[in-house]
Amino acid sequence: MQFSPLIKELIDALKILPGVGTKSAQRMAFHLLERNRNGALRLSSVLHNAMEHIKHCEQCRTFCENALCEICANPKRQSSELLCVVESPQDVLAVEQTLEFKGRYFVLMGHLSPIDGIGPADIGLDQLEQILQAGGISEVILATNPTVEGAATAHYIAQMCKVHTIQASRIAHGVPVGGELEFIDGNTLTHAFSGRRVI
Amino acid sequence: MQFSPLIKELIDALKILPGVGTKSAQRMAFHLLERNRNGALRLSSVLHNAMEHIKHCEQCRTFCENALCEICANPKRQSSELLCVVESPQDVLAVEQTLEFKGRYFVLMGHLSPIDGIGPADIGLDQLEQILQAGGISEVILATNPTVEGAATAHYIAQMCKVHTIQASRIAHGVPVGGELEFIDGNTLTHAFSGRRVI
Repeated sequence: MQFSPLIKELIDALKILPGVGTKSAQRMAFHLLERNRNGALRLSSVLHNAMEHIKHCEQCRTFCENALCEICANPKRQSSELLCVVESPQDVLAVEQTLEFKGRYFVLMGHLSPIDGIGPADIGLDQLEQILQAGGISEVILATNPTVEGAATAHYIAQMCKVHTIQASRIAHGVPVGGELEFIDGNTLTHAFSGRRVI
Repeated sequence: MQFSPLIKELIDALKILPGVGTKSAQRMAFHLLERNRNGALRLSSVLHNAMEHIKHCEQCRTFCENALCEICANPKRQSSELLCVVESPQDVLAVEQTLEFKGRYFVLMGHLSPIDGIGPADIGLDQLEQILQAGGISEVILATNPTVEGAATAHYIAQMCKVHTIQASRIAHGVPVGGELEFIDGNTLTHAFSGRRVI
């Protein structure tokens, strides 16, 4: 005996969520059926709406439902000469939460990864090229992740900036604030030493 | 800056899933938007379908989309004189997977819990009463969970069986097969001793 076809279908459909296996999907399905049918109906309609209407911001490529995202639609931000390049919309949020950066963004929605067939066009570098060409940018801050792919992507974009004689900078890598030296990996510590500043 | 209103709505809607907090919901939302819009649209329609069409089996109260579930619609199972009472549809699946039990089921969809205002009518005991009254049952196997509420529920149903002079039995509690004695809690071990059998 197994669950009825529709319940099985629901469990299978829930398994597309990241980090959700058969057992979690079962738990979710029965939780919704027993306790929160209205919530589930709402989730169903919001999911449909979101998938149909959320597209990329025409300027910075982040996810939004309008032609331009909140930041790109803000004339104050758009007059800035700083452009921060990040890998994902979540990274934009992380940078915004520091309240330190008041410039524009460009969201790659990924990183260069030739082994997965992801080239410059797939992460919107032709669009970035146009932005650099249009002028008005004095510095590009490369805030891609400190991984091999992130570093390679940063390097590639830095080369593009050179062509347009725009300054490119990379965010600092080093010991996280509040971290303890003895638990920091050697690679990070090397970065921390080579990036030391005179005080 | 925050995510756009529709993305925020999607993240909030995903948080109704059990075990999903803000961070997981964000991860889910962006995963679906970036990698699996078709899967998400399918999930949306299956969710809607399931919430609209899945109801309780008229006889055993488990979840199914037809009037009777697979087991209740099977005449072979319905001719059995054994009735197994469990707390949830997942428990039915667990018992079925042993391939040992060939009788009927009754699914309480919960347990007695006066402190939460859950009385006999809320777990379908009036319906169970009718089944016992209708005859054809010789033994009720109480397979509720070995918790205080599960035991109280089993005791209550055993009293109902007594009224109809139907034998009631409780599944054995003891050391799980493959378990090690030194790691078993005292309560379980007490049950194991009091339930010992002559070999």
